[in-house]
Amino acid sequence: MALLLLSTAERGEVWPRVFAEAGESIFVGEASVADPAAITHIACWVPPQDLSVYTGLKTVISVGAGVDHLPPLPAGIALSRTIAPGIEAMVRDWVVMATLMAHRDMPTYLAQARDRLWRAGKVTTASARTVGILGMGRIGRLAAAGLGSLGFRVRGWSRSGTPVDGIDMFAAADLDGFLRGADILVCLLPLTAATRGILGEALFAKLPQGARLVHAGRGAHLDMAALWRALDAGRLASAVLDVTDPEPLPAEHPLWSDPRVIITPHVAAQTDAREGALHALTVIRAVREGRPIPGLVARERGY
Amino acid sequence: MALLLLSTAERGEVWPRVFAEAGESIFVGEASVADPAAITHIACWVPPQDLSVYTGLKTVISVGAGVDHLPPLPAGIALSRTIAPGIEAMVRDWVVMATLMAHRDMPTYLAQARDRLWRAGKVTTASARTVGILGMGRIGRLAAAGLGSLGFRVRGWSRSGTPVDGIDMFAAADLDGFLRGADILVCLLPLTAATRGILGEALFAKLPQGARLVHAGRGAHLDMAALWRALDAGRLASAVLDVTDPEPLPAEHPLWSDPRVIITPHVAAQTDAREGALHALTVIRAVREGRPIPGLVARERGY
Repeated sequence: MALLLLSTAERGEVWPRVFAEAGESIFVGEASVADPAAITHIACWVPPQDLSVYTGLKTVISVGAGVDHLPPLPAGIALSRTIAPGIEAMVRDWVVMATLMAHRDMPTYLAQARDRLWRAGKVTTASARTVGILGMGRIGRLAAAGLGSLGFRVRGWSRSGTPVDGIDMFAAADLDGFLRGADILVCLLPLTAATRGILGEALFAKLPQGARLVHAGRGAHLDMAALWRALDAGRLASAVLDVTDPEPLPAEHPLWSDPRVIITPHVAAQTDAREGALHALTVIRAVREGRPIPGLVARERGY
Repeated sequence: MALLLLSTAERGEVWPRVFAEAGESIFVGEASVADPAAITHIACWVPPQDLSVYTGLKTVISVGAGVDHLPPLPAGIALSRTIAPGIEAMVRDWVVMATLMAHRDMPTYLAQARDRLWRAGKVTTASARTVGILGMGRIGRLAAAGLGSLGFRVRGWSRSGTPVDGIDMFAAADLDGFLRGADILVCLLPLTAATRGILGEALFAKLPQGARLVHAGRGAHLDMAALWRALDAGRLASAVLDVTDPEPLPAEHPLWSDPRVIITPHVAAQTDAREGALHALTVIRAVREGRPIPGLVARERGY
């Protein structure tokens, strides 16, 4: 088995050391591959357009947690997305921060500070607000636990509605009921055909008046024009976004100067190079031993 | 026993209802008191200058958690500060938010957003940073638990250095050792003669280069000029302040426009009127039954 890494210079430095320690073969960059048929795994953000020379290819490993950017793969080639405890904790931390910022009126206080205005509003306890999390995968459950421990009531929405300890769970069909009680809506969904544009007019209309949005999914989940209308109508009081559409957000975009919106430049998480390499090693070993592939993507669901 | 409340209109509405339910006597405002000798407790932010007419007075109850603003009381009159779970959780939430904002470079991202600039920096995991908490009372321990559950290493400094589960504790004499490892310094100290001005030149000099400051103590803990020099020297990378000196911060103060500093207008916590009334009831009952007074302030220590 041998892995071909097509990624950043940093990963190109770190992965070979991790693979050497583990006694596994790695090639960095297509130019370094003499015998494409020997490559069994490709780790990349975007795979080569033509995979046909890699006749022994078994898996493609996305070096990130997301796979929505990937084209369909030929039949028989599995897709794994990187599972790394570091990524999950990073997103959880960003979500806890952004939810607290929305909850504690930071958009208002930051706007007042720009106007050099010291004016205290009323403080609301976390226990008085319900956070609704769209997407209850590994990261959603981690965020739910963190927010729950601060006293927020937490509800979750997922395709299956699978029960989660301490969380009011709602299944796909009960989106309306879920939204009705979400004072702060957190989006952690994977981007699929079913979730593209989900943060739009119809969804916002079902939230409580004055709800707050925290978005760490993908830019394409969000209808930016609908967000603006919801803010203007008071349906949404504020939004904290780590992702936008388009991304990067162009300098001339009016959202930059909206005092109700806080934007971070897609920094909820970054894969640590070493953690990514360790994930790739677990994939290689699972394939070798015929065990289930870690991070295997169900292509029909899209995540 | 009868309590005299000298406070806000909101408390003046809520407290009499809570006291009526509990079958205790309450007077709102000095004008409503016909017989000052019948008053056994006064709940207030600042007590009347002349307490001599209240010949039966046993306790003064501060309606807030702080007592540093109070003048010395005559001998024989106990001072209680309000203990309310709501206050403690509110401060914890603000501290968790502010610490995450400092940790995740929000001052930088907010400044970039003002410049309409989408530029991602490197994300650091919480586990790579140590938060040092100055002041390990009830709120400090709550904040430590919250930050610890997000993966931060947490160390605490208190007068006594009393052990706390899962926290590296340092006693008063070992302040230097404590500071040396505090990547993010959180101040939750009570304001006393010993802590006034503690956040100054000498303390900042002992922090790691590029440390971050989170301040939810009192404005008078902080030497604002020293803060500025520490930021300019890179000793401090940023500061998130809920309290300032003076307070309110005047509109012309240059700190408002410093991109390294985030200021909230003393909103880490507010006593809920009902919780404050319930605390006062526990004080009245403890005095009646000769039990220890909840929130009793050790005047020689100042908190």
